[in-house]
Amino acid sequence: MNPKETNLDDAALPAGVSTANLHEFIENAHAVDLAAWLAELPADLAIEQILSLALPRRATTFSYLPLTTQTELAQRLPPGELTQIVTQMNADDRADLFKQLPPPAQRQLLADLAPTEREDIRRLSTYAEETAGAIMTSGYAALTTSMSAADAIGALRREAPRTEMIYRSYVLDTKGRLIGTVRLHELMLAGADTPVADLMDPSPVAVALDTDQEEVARLITRYHLTALPVVDDAGRLAGIITRDDAEAALQRETTEDFQKIATVQPFAESVRQASIHVLYTKRILWLALLVFGNLFSGAGIAFFEDTILAYVSLVFFLPLLIDSGGNAGSQAATLMVRALATGDVALQDWHNLILREVVIATALGATMALIVSPVGLLRGGYDIALVVGMTMVLVVVIGSLVGMSLPFLLSRLRLDPATASAPLVTTISDAVGVLVYFSIATSVLSP
Amino acid sequence: MNPKETNLDDAALPAGVSTANLHEFIENAHAVDLAAWLAELPADLAIEQILSLALPRRATTFSYLPLTTQTELAQRLPPGELTQIVTQMNADDRADLFKQLPPPAQRQLLADLAPTEREDIRRLSTYAEETAGAIMTSGYAALTTSMSAADAIGALRREAPRTEMIYRSYVLDTKGRLIGTVRLHELMLAGADTPVADLMDPSPVAVALDTDQEEVARLITRYHLTALPVVDDAGRLAGIITRDDAEAALQRETTEDFQKIATVQPFAESVRQASIHVLYTKRILWLALLVFGNLFSGAGIAFFEDTILAYVSLVFFLPLLIDSGGNAGSQAATLMVRALATGDVALQDWHNLILREVVIATALGATMALIVSPVGLLRGGYDIALVVGMTMVLVVVIGSLVGMSLPFLLSRLRLDPATASAPLVTTISDAVGVLVYFSIATSVLSP
Repeated sequence: MNPKETNLDDAALPAGVSTANLHEFIENAHAVDLAAWLAELPADLAIEQILSLALPRRATTFSYLPLTTQTELAQRLPPGELTQIVTQMNADDRADLFKQLPPPAQRQLLADLAPTEREDIRRLSTYAEETAGAIMTSGYAALTTSMSAADAIGALRREAPRTEMIYRSYVLDTKGRLIGTVRLHELMLAGADTPVADLMDPSPVAVALDTDQEEVARLITRYHLTALPVVDDAGRLAGIITRDDAEAALQRETTEDFQKIATVQPFAESVRQASIHVLYTKRILWLALLVFGNLFSGAGIAFFEDTILAYVSLVFFLPLLIDSGGNAGSQAATLMVRALATGDVALQDWHNLILREVVIATALGATMALIVSPVGLLRGGYDIALVVGMTMVLVVVIGSLVGMSLPFLLSRLRLDPATASAPLVTTISDAVGVLVYFSIATSVLSP
Repeated sequence: MNPKETNLDDAALPAGVSTANLHEFIENAHAVDLAAWLAELPADLAIEQILSLALPRRATTFSYLPLTTQTELAQRLPPGELTQIVTQMNADDRADLFKQLPPPAQRQLLADLAPTEREDIRRLSTYAEETAGAIMTSGYAALTTSMSAADAIGALRREAPRTEMIYRSYVLDTKGRLIGTVRLHELMLAGADTPVADLMDPSPVAVALDTDQEEVARLITRYHLTALPVVDDAGRLAGIITRDDAEAALQRETTEDFQKIATVQPFAESVRQASIHVLYTKRILWLALLVFGNLFSGAGIAFFEDTILAYVSLVFFLPLLIDSGGNAGSQAATLMVRALATGDVALQDWHNLILREVVIATALGATMALIVSPVGLLRGGYDIALVVGMTMVLVVVIGSLVGMSLPFLLSRLRLDPATASAPLVTTISDAVGVLVYFSIATSVLSP
């Protein structure tokens, strides 16, 4: 029905959409779904489809594309078309795209844009990654205390096309300093003559330009905010961070925590789309480091070679004992990493938690010793059962204490507690476990 | 300055607040911060402070208390005071508290409430945990198509005190079926006579009463919604889920994923406040199961006892080799658990990812073999170096494939992919690693 669709073979259709209703999908689907489909198409086909959209929808759909796709398409779109799209994008999305473009494309884009947008991009692109400045937007509505509720609503109507956040407005003094915020429905429900000063919250939560994005997300969640204002050193409003953007930042941080727990160096790409090279590079560092860590366990074993030759059945229990310490330690470490990330636990709680952990770990170790002792009795007699049972309790307690304390220690050293990954804890527990096991064995079994 | 404060000794003061400005803190702090402080006080002091607050603030502060604290205080508050607070709480928070109360307290509360609130609590308390029905609220504003924009704003003004979500209203037909949604600022910006039907989005995203809360959170994030409507089988609007509540649910699910990755059975309590008994119970099951898993590794070792006695230096490399397979497998598993949870990867992507994983794992294994082979040469000569190098490549590939595939397999079996925890993958890799290691050793080293 549309000649533009002839290039699309069936394989490239969105899930559940046939050639017959593709046109309807493109016209009516949510821009998020449309963008998800376009992101999977070859660039030339995606551009063809984007250009077939009417303008407000074109910019919205483009904004929902992954940043890598936006960057690729931006360099292939006719410059005039790109300028139109970029002009209609949200200020922060615009700045994010701009930062990804190569310098010639940046210069071209700045030259094509109107002065207001040009200045806005320049300003928003200057802040350090992962700070409030880098994720804020300039799409806020500003009011003054002298306005009445009716004046304010009039101002909001005029500002509406360029504001991302209309539900809360920011009240500034004559020097541009933030002195309060007011909610749209309070303006609406108040009498027309009520001064904005009477309706505003005079002590809004705000952050500095260099506040970490994790802190931003934490504040937005804690205080149930829809947007958080960012002020410069003089208290002037520099921008706002919408909840959407803060959440996207928080999602990225949580994914990073998962990666670190898995001893993978953080990477921002989708796991599905990341290249073999990226995944290799991000995974090898810790794996290689842990090889060296494990050589300590080996050295421990070498030291006790005589005991092993005399009682080879001890080797039977080796993987079990060292793994059990590692497993209990991984539990403790991962619980603490998460608790520190959500704010459930703070640095000063370590003292209160460590004693409790000793009790829990002793109970866990004793239970596991009860399970494994009969096997020890069966395979090596009473002495072996005693050695294995005692070692089990000790390695579980040591593993748990290492696992619990490591995230606190890293946090204290201003490192990310999530670096206390399960494999790291396992490797440390292994080396200690080998020493404990063969020391106990040597002293119990030696005549 | 306030006689009520005399019971509070300095230890119980909020951080950064002195006795002199405690009164100011209680009057002016954000209700979230006030609640965080009250939650740490003994129950009788907390009740004293809550009752000293004016009513709207009293209910808001109470809502921000942890549910366990709410439940405890609810049973100690004078019934009349409790009824007042509960009446002013949001519908969903109210239902959550109600569900926690013991039956006599539930009956008392229902008897004290006005009929509207009573029915509302009854209705919201009937849905299964972790479904849309269980986390929805009835605090929405409903409009009809025949209204003009001015009528609609008038209706919203009247409804404002009991609506949790004023920024989006829900348009219903005469049978109560959801036929569209309209945003407050569109009503405001439109001409007074514009019919609501012209302003509404006629195909809003909605979910069923039994939709899983994780799916709810996924939709709210995907479509950047501030609230998601819930409809019954007949398409009638049953309630809405605010973004706040969906996010709280998502936070809980993410914490559960962390717990599962650590082989801890999910628990809802704060790690800081959980009892020793709860933590022991939640941790012991998997630790005990893994003990049995590790006995397979032991059995493998027992089978190769002769090889070990002949070449005891093989034991030196045992922890290293089996851990390396487990570490690579933990990486792959954790990356996939997170990717499946965020929707980055879907069930059908397994085929495309498995081949890439073989390539990556081979490269990882080869690198690690290069690191460890010289140590093999040093400790046992050329043959041992060959055995150790070959084993390293194989265990890393096998561990990675197990780690990558297990989350998909669990997902396919409709189990939670997060059950593919690092310790589980490690235990499986260990058993396979022992067999691979000593099989290669036996065939290379036997004359």
